[in-house]
Amino acid sequence: MDESEDVPKDFIKLKSEKLSVDEVSELVISPNCGAVSLFIGTTRNNFEGKKVIHLEYEAYTSMAEMEIKKICRDVRQKWPSVKHIAMHHRLGVVPITEASVIIAVSSPHRTESLEAVTYCINTLKAFVPIWKKLLFILTPSRGQTERVLSSLLGGKVRFCVGLWKSLESALHWTALQFARDL
Amino acid sequence: MDESEDVPKDFIKLKSEKLSVDEVSELVISPNCGAVSLFIGTTRNNFEGKKVIHLEYEAYTSMAEMEIKKICRDVRQKWPSVKHIAMHHRLGVVPITEASVIIAVSSPHRTESLEAVTYCINTLKAFVPIWKKLLFILTPSRGQTERVLSSLLGGKVRFCVGLWKSLESALHWTALQFARDL
Repeated sequence: MDESEDVPKDFIKLKSEKLSVDEVSELVISPNCGAVSLFIGTTRNNFEGKKVIHLEYEAYTSMAEMEIKKICRDVRQKWPSVKHIAMHHRLGVVPITEASVIIAVSSPHRTESLEAVTYCINTLKAFVPIWKKLLFILTPSRGQTERVLSSLLGGKVRFCVGLWKSLESALHWTALQFARDL
Repeated sequence: MDESEDVPKDFIKLKSEKLSVDEVSELVISPNCGAVSLFIGTTRNNFEGKKVIHLEYEAYTSMAEMEIKKICRDVRQKWPSVKHIAMHHRLGVVPITEASVIIAVSSPHRTESLEAVTYCINTLKAFVPIWKKLLFILTPSRGQTERVLSSLLGGKVRFCVGLWKSLESALHWTALQFARDL
Protein backbone atom coordinates (compact mmCIF):
# COMPACT_ATOMS: atom_id res chain seq x y z
CA MET A 1 0.00 0.00 0.00
CA ASP A 2 1.27 3.45 -0.89
CA GLU A 3 1.52 5.24 2.47
CA SER A 4 0.30 8.52 1.03
CA GLU A 5 -2.97 6.72 0.18
CA ASP A 6 -3.41 5.55 3.75
CA VAL A 7 -5.41 8.62 4.82
CA PRO A 8 -7.91 8.16 7.68
CA LYS A 9 -11.22 6.74 6.45
CA ASP A 10 -14.67 6.02 7.90
CA PHE A 11 -16.57 2.96 6.68
CA ILE A 12 -20.27 3.07 7.60
CA LYS A 13 -22.85 0.52 6.48
CA LEU A 14 -26.41 -0.47 7.48
CA LYS A 15 -27.38 -3.68 5.69
CA SER A 16 -29.65 -6.71 5.97
CA GLU A 17 -27.01 -9.30 5.03
CA LYS A 18 -24.89 -11.20 7.57
CA LEU A 19 -21.96 -9.17 8.95
CA SER A 20 -18.37 -10.42 8.63
CA VAL A 21 -15.78 -9.85 11.36
CA ASP A 22 -12.92 -10.53 8.92
CA GLU A 23 -14.30 -8.00 6.42
CA VAL A 24 -14.76 -5.23 9.00
CA SER A 25 -11.34 -5.76 10.59
CA GLU A 26 -9.62 -5.82 7.16
CA LEU A 27 -11.16 -2.40 6.36
CA VAL A 28 -9.27 -0.67 9.17
CA ILE A 29 -5.88 -2.40 9.00
CA SER A 30 -3.05 0.01 8.20
CA PRO A 31 0.74 -0.48 7.85
CA ASN A 32 1.18 2.49 10.20
CA CYS A 33 -0.97 0.96 12.95
CA GLY A 34 -0.14 -1.69 15.53
CA ALA A 35 -3.62 -1.94 17.02
CA VAL A 36 -7.13 -2.82 15.90
CA SER A 37 -9.88 -2.93 18.52
CA LEU A 38 -13.25 -4.45 17.71
CA PHE A 39 -16.62 -4.73 19.31
CA ILE A 40 -19.21 -7.25 18.11
CA GLY A 41 -22.78 -7.05 19.39
CA THR A 42 -24.45 -10.47 19.07
CA THR A 43 -28.08 -11.52 19.56
CA ARG A 44 -28.62 -13.10 22.98
CA ASN A 45 -31.18 -15.81 23.69
CA ASN A 46 -32.56 -13.77 26.60
CA PHE A 47 -33.60 -10.18 27.40
CA GLU A 48 -34.59 -8.91 30.84
CA GLY A 49 -34.94 -12.50 32.05
CA LYS A 50 -37.20 -13.61 29.19
CA LYS A 51 -36.34 -16.18 26.51
CA VAL A 52 -35.90 -14.51 23.10
CA ILE A 53 -37.00 -16.54 20.09
CA HIS A 54 -36.73 -13.87 17.39
CA LEU A 55 -35.08 -10.47 17.08
CA GLU A 56 -35.33 -7.83 14.38
CA TYR A 57 -33.57 -4.47 14.03
CA GLU A 58 -35.25 -1.43 12.51
CA ALA A 59 -33.62 1.92 11.80
CA TYR A 60 -34.47 5.44 10.70
CA THR A 61 -31.71 4.85 8.13
CA SER A 62 -30.71 8.31 6.92
CA MET A 63 -30.74 9.71 10.46
CA ALA A 64 -28.83 6.67 11.78
CA GLU A 65 -26.09 7.15 9.15
CA MET A 66 -25.82 10.85 10.03
CA GLU A 67 -25.49 10.05 13.74
CA ILE A 68 -22.83 7.39 13.05
CA LYS A 69 -20.85 9.91 10.95
CA LYS A 70 -21.04 12.30 13.90
CA ILE A 71 -19.59 9.59 16.18
CA CYS A 72 -16.65 9.19 13.75
CA ARG A 73 -16.02 12.96 13.81
CA ASP A 74 -16.11 12.95 17.63
CA VAL A 75 -13.62 10.06 17.75
CA ARG A 76 -11.17 11.93 15.51
CA GLN A 77 -11.35 14.95 17.80
CA LYS A 78 -10.91 12.96 20.99
CA TRP A 79 -8.21 10.55 19.68
CA PRO A 80 -6.42 12.33 16.78
CA SER A 81 -4.07 9.38 16.20
CA VAL A 82 -6.98 7.05 15.28
CA LYS A 83 -6.55 5.91 11.65
CA HIS A 84 -9.61 4.08 10.25
CA ILE A 85 -13.08 3.53 11.73
CA ALA A 86 -15.60 0.94 10.49
CA MET A 87 -19.15 0.66 11.84
CA HIS A 88 -21.44 -1.95 10.26
CA HIS A 89 -24.97 -2.52 11.61
CA ARG A 90 -27.30 -5.27 10.45
CA LEU A 91 -31.02 -4.57 9.99
CA GLY A 92 -33.93 -7.02 9.85
CA VAL A 93 -33.88 -10.43 11.50
CA VAL A 94 -30.65 -11.29 13.33
CA PRO A 95 -30.60 -14.93 14.55
CA ILE A 96 -29.28 -15.81 18.03
CA THR A 97 -25.41 -15.64 18.21
CA GLU A 98 -25.12 -13.68 14.93
CA ALA A 99 -23.71 -10.13 14.90
CA SER A 100 -26.05 -7.14 14.87
CA VAL A 101 -23.21 -4.63 14.97
CA ILE A 102 -19.44 -4.71 14.36
CA ILE A 103 -17.20 -1.74 15.11
CA ALA A 104 -13.46 -1.66 14.37
CA VAL A 105 -10.93 1.10 15.02
CA SER A 106 -7.22 1.15 14.18
CA SER A 107 -4.50 3.30 15.74
CA PRO A 108 -0.67 3.22 15.92
CA HIS A 109 -0.77 2.25 19.63
CA ARG A 110 -3.43 0.29 21.48
CA THR A 111 -4.86 2.70 24.08
CA GLU A 112 -6.50 4.98 21.51
CA SER A 113 -8.27 2.21 19.58
CA LEU A 114 -9.45 0.49 22.80
CA GLU A 115 -10.88 3.73 24.19
CA ALA A 116 -12.37 4.79 20.85
CA VAL A 117 -14.20 1.50 20.23
CA THR A 118 -15.77 1.71 23.72
CA TYR A 119 -16.86 5.29 22.97
CA CYS A 120 -18.30 4.24 19.58
CA ILE A 121 -20.50 1.43 20.89
CA ASN A 122 -21.70 3.40 23.95
CA THR A 123 -22.57 6.44 21.83
CA LEU A 124 -24.19 4.35 19.08
CA LYS A 125 -26.44 2.64 21.65
CA ALA A 126 -27.34 5.96 23.27
CA PHE A 127 -27.98 8.18 20.25
CA VAL A 128 -28.38 6.29 16.97
CA PRO A 129 -32.06 5.66 16.03
CA ILE A 130 -31.95 1.86 15.75
CA TRP A 131 -34.51 -0.21 17.64
CA LYS A 132 -34.98 -3.88 18.23
CA LYS A 133 -38.24 -5.82 18.02
CA LEU A 134 -38.11 -8.91 20.21
CA LEU A 135 -40.39 -11.93 20.25
CA PHE A 136 -40.30 -13.76 23.59
CA ILE A 137 -41.53 -17.04 24.95
CA LEU A 138 -43.11 -16.43 28.34
CA THR A 139 -44.19 -19.09 30.79
CA PRO A 140 -47.28 -17.61 32.50
CA SER A 141 -48.10 -18.11 36.16
CA ARG A 142 -51.38 -19.65 37.34
CA GLY A 143 -52.72 -16.21 38.37
CA GLN A 144 -51.79 -14.59 35.03
CA THR A 145 -53.48 -17.39 33.08
CA GLU A 146 -56.62 -17.15 35.24
CA ARG A 147 -56.83 -13.38 34.74
CA VAL A 148 -56.43 -13.60 30.95
CA LEU A 149 -58.96 -16.42 30.59
CA SER A 150 -61.40 -14.65 32.94
CA SER A 151 -61.32 -11.50 30.84
CA LEU A 152 -61.60 -13.45 27.57
CA LEU A 153 -64.51 -15.56 28.78
CA GLY A 154 -66.24 -12.76 30.69
CA GLY A 155 -66.40 -14.66 33.98
CA LYS A 156 -64.13 -15.78 36.80
CA VAL A 157 -61.88 -18.74 35.93
CA ARG A 158 -60.04 -20.59 38.70
CA PHE A 159 -57.91 -23.72 38.23
CA CYS A 160 -57.79 -26.41 40.85
CA VAL A 161 -54.19 -27.46 41.61
CA GLY A 162 -54.48 -30.73 39.65
CA LEU A 163 -55.76 -29.09 36.46
CA TRP A 164 -53.16 -26.29 36.67
CA LYS A 165 -50.32 -28.81 37.08
CA SER A 166 -51.35 -30.64 33.90
CA LEU A 167 -51.83 -27.36 31.97
CA GLU A 168 -48.70 -25.56 33.23
CA SER A 169 -46.05 -27.36 31.20
CA ALA A 170 -48.01 -27.03 27.95
CA LEU A 171 -48.68 -23.28 28.21
CA HIS A 172 -46.47 -20.74 26.44
CA TRP A 173 -47.28 -17.20 25.55
CA THR A 174 -45.41 -15.24 22.98
CA ALA A 175 -44.94 -11.53 23.51
CA LEU A 176 -43.67 -8.85 21.20
CA GLN A 177 -41.66 -5.95 22.55
CA PHE A 178 -40.01 -2.95 20.97
CA ALA A 179 -36.94 -1.76 22.83
CA ARG A 180 -34.22 0.81 22.41
CA ASP A 181 -31.09 -1.24 21.95
CA LEU A 182 -29.18 -0.07 25.03
CA MET B 1 -25.97 -25.41 21.25
CA ASP B 2 -27.08 -27.10 24.45
CA GLU B 3 -26.92 -24.33 27.05
CA SER B 4 -25.63 -26.65 29.77
CA GLU B 5 -22.57 -27.26 27.55
CA ASP B 6 -21.86 -23.54 27.30
CA VAL B 7 -19.57 -23.47 30.35
CA PRO B 8 -16.85 -20.76 30.43
CA LYS B 9 -13.77 -21.79 28.46
CA ASP B 10 -10.26 -20.43 27.85
CA PHE B 11 -8.68 -20.93 24.41
CA ILE B 12 -4.92 -20.31 24.44
CA LYS B 13 -2.61 -20.89 21.49
CA LEU B 14 0.93 -19.90 20.47
CA LYS B 15 1.53 -20.84 16.84
CA SER B 16 3.61 -19.94 13.82
CA GLU B 17 0.73 -19.97 11.30
CA LYS B 18 -1.28 -16.89 10.31
CA LEU B 19 -3.93 -15.91 12.88
CA SER B 20 -7.60 -15.65 11.90
CA VAL B 21 -9.91 -12.99 13.37
CA ASP B 22 -13.00 -14.99 12.34
CA GLU B 23 -11.69 -18.14 14.00
CA VAL B 24 -10.82 -16.43 17.29
CA SER B 25 -14.11 -14.53 17.48
CA GLU B 26 -16.13 -17.70 16.69
CA LEU B 27 -14.45 -19.47 19.64
CA VAL B 28 -15.96 -17.09 22.19
CA ILE B 29 -19.47 -16.58 20.78
CA SER B 30 -22.19 -17.79 23.14
CA PRO B 31 -26.02 -17.74 22.91
CA ASN B 32 -26.07 -16.22 26.42
CA CYS B 33 -23.78 -13.32 25.46
CA GLY B 34 -24.56 -10.09 23.64
CA ALA B 35 -20.98 -8.82 23.48
CA VAL B 36 -17.65 -9.91 22.04
CA SER B 37 -14.69 -7.53 22.37
CA LEU B 38 -11.52 -8.15 20.41
CA PHE B 39 -8.04 -6.75 20.27
CA ILE B 40 -5.74 -7.41 17.31
CA GLY B 41 -2.07 -6.46 17.52
CA THR B 42 -0.66 -5.98 14.00
CA THR B 43 2.91 -5.47 12.78
CA ARG B 44 3.62 -1.80 12.10
CA ASN B 45 6.03 -0.58 9.41
CA ASN B 46 7.81 1.60 11.99
CA PHE B 47 9.18 1.39 15.54
CA GLU B 48 10.56 4.30 17.53
CA GLY B 49 10.75 6.37 14.36
CA LYS B 50 12.64 3.75 12.34
CA LYS B 51 11.35 1.89 9.28
CA VAL B 52 10.74 -1.81 10.07
CA ILE B 53 11.36 -4.26 7.24
CA HIS B 54 11.08 -7.53 9.16
CA LEU B 55 9.70 -8.62 12.52
CA GLU B 56 9.91 -11.92 14.36
CA TYR B 57 8.37 -13.01 17.67
CA GLU B 58 10.12 -15.38 20.06
CA ALA B 59 8.67 -16.83 23.26
CA TYR B 60 9.63 -18.86 26.27
CA THR B 61 6.62 -21.01 25.29
CA SER B 62 5.77 -23.02 28.42
CA MET B 63 6.20 -19.98 30.66
CA ALA B 64 4.20 -17.80 28.24
CA GLU B 65 1.28 -20.27 28.27
CA MET B 66 1.34 -20.38 32.08
CA GLU B 67 1.27 -16.58 32.27
CA ILE B 68 -1.60 -16.37 29.77
CA LYS B 69 -3.59 -18.93 31.83
CA LYS B 70 -2.98 -16.73 34.88
CA ILE B 71 -4.41 -13.72 32.98
CA CYS B 72 -7.56 -15.77 32.22
CA ARG B 73 -7.94 -16.66 35.92
CA ASP B 74 -7.51 -12.98 36.88
CA VAL B 75 -10.18 -11.95 34.34
CA ARG B 76 -12.68 -14.44 35.79
CA GLN B 77 -12.10 -13.04 39.28
CA LYS B 78 -12.38 -9.41 38.20
CA TRP B 79 -15.34 -9.86 35.80
CA PRO B 80 -17.26 -12.99 36.92
CA SER B 81 -19.86 -12.61 34.13
CA VAL B 82 -17.20 -13.09 31.39
CA LYS B 83 -18.01 -16.27 29.41
CA HIS B 84 -15.23 -17.33 27.02
CA ILE B 85 -11.68 -15.98 26.58
CA ALA B 86 -9.44 -16.68 23.54
CA MET B 87 -5.83 -15.53 23.30
CA HIS B 88 -3.85 -16.51 20.19
CA HIS B 89 -0.26 -15.29 19.69
CA ARG B 90 1.77 -15.84 16.54
CA LEU B 91 5.48 -16.72 16.77
CA GLY B 92 8.20 -16.39 14.12
CA VAL B 93 8.05 -13.91 11.25
CA VAL B 94 4.93 -11.70 11.18
CA PRO B 95 4.74 -9.58 7.99
CA ILE B 96 3.67 -5.91 8.15
CA THR B 97 -0.15 -5.52 8.71
CA GLU B 98 -0.59 -9.17 9.79
CA ALA B 99 -1.74 -10.05 13.32
CA SER B 100 0.79 -11.02 15.98
CA VAL B 101 -1.86 -11.39 18.68
CA ILE B 102 -5.66 -11.70 18.76
CA ILE B 103 -7.63 -11.61 22.00
CA ALA B 104 -11.41 -12.12 22.22
CA VAL B 105 -13.67 -12.04 25.26
CA SER B 106 -17.45 -12.61 25.43
CA SER B 107 -19.88 -11.50 28.13
CA PRO B 108 -23.66 -11.03 28.43
CA HIS B 109 -23.31 -7.22 28.43
CA ARG B 110 -20.62 -5.10 26.79
CA THR B 111 -18.83 -3.33 29.65
CA GLU B 112 -17.26 -6.52 31.06
CA SER B 113 -15.86 -7.75 27.73
CA LEU B 114 -14.52 -4.29 26.80
CA GLU B 115 -12.76 -3.89 30.16
CA ALA B 116 -11.50 -7.49 30.19
CA VAL B 117 -9.96 -7.33 26.70
CA THR B 118 -8.07 -4.15 27.68
CA TYR B 119 -6.82 -5.87 30.84
CA CYS B 120 -5.75 -8.96 28.82
CA ILE B 121 -3.63 -7.10 26.26
CA ASN B 122 -2.05 -4.75 28.84
CA THR B 123 -1.16 -7.66 31.15
CA LEU B 124 0.07 -9.85 28.27
CA LYS B 125 2.42 -7.08 27.10
CA ALA B 126 3.68 -6.44 30.65
CA PHE B 127 4.20 -9.97 31.95
CA VAL B 128 4.18 -12.66 29.24
CA PRO B 129 7.69 -13.64 28.06
CA ILE B 130 7.33 -12.89 24.35
CA TRP B 131 9.90 -10.69 22.61
CA LYS B 132 10.16 -9.19 19.17
CA LYS B 133 13.23 -9.09 16.94
CA LEU B 134 13.08 -6.17 14.53
CA LEU B 135 15.11 -5.52 11.40
CA PHE B 136 15.16 -1.84 10.45
CA ILE B 137 16.17 0.20 7.45
CA LEU B 138 18.09 3.26 8.58
CA THR B 139 19.04 6.14 6.35
CA PRO B 140 22.45 7.31 7.62
CA SER B 141 23.52 10.94 7.75
CA ARG B 142 26.67 12.23 5.99
CA GLY B 143 28.54 12.38 9.33
CA GLN B 144 27.55 8.83 10.34
CA THR B 145 28.63 7.45 6.96
CA GLU B 146 31.98 9.31 7.12
CA ARG B 147 32.67 7.97 10.64
CA VAL B 148 31.89 4.36 9.70
CA LEU B 149 33.93 4.47 6.47
CA SER B 150 36.82 6.18 8.26
CA SER B 151 36.99 3.45 10.89
CA LEU B 152 36.65 0.68 8.26
CA LEU B 153 39.33 2.14 6.00
CA GLY B 154 41.61 3.27 8.83
CA GLY B 155 41.83 6.86 7.64
CA LYS B 156 39.73 10.02 7.53
CA VAL B 157 36.99 9.97 4.87
CA ARG B 158 35.19 13.21 3.97
CA PHE B 159 32.60 13.59 1.19
CA CYS B 160 32.30 16.74 -0.83
CA VAL B 161 28.68 17.92 -1.12
CA GLY B 162 28.32 16.72 -4.71
CA LEU B 163 29.54 13.19 -4.01
CA TRP B 164 27.38 12.94 -0.83
CA LYS B 165 24.27 14.03 -2.77
CA SER B 166 24.76 11.29 -5.32
CA LEU B 167 25.51 8.65 -2.63
CA GLU B 168 22.79 9.65 -0.12
CA SER B 169 19.74 8.23 -1.86
CA ALA B 170 21.44 4.87 -2.50
CA LEU B 171 22.64 4.26 1.07
CA HIS B 172 20.67 2.12 3.51
CA TRP B 173 21.84 0.45 6.65
CA THR B 174 20.01 -2.39 8.29
CA ALA B 175 19.92 -2.75 12.06
CA LEU B 176 18.69 -5.56 14.25
CA GLN B 177 17.04 -4.90 17.60
CA PHE B 178 15.47 -7.10 20.27
CA ALA B 179 12.66 -5.44 22.19
CA ARG B 180 10.12 -6.35 24.79
CA ASP B 181 6.82 -6.05 22.98
CA LEU B 182 5.24 -3.26 25.07
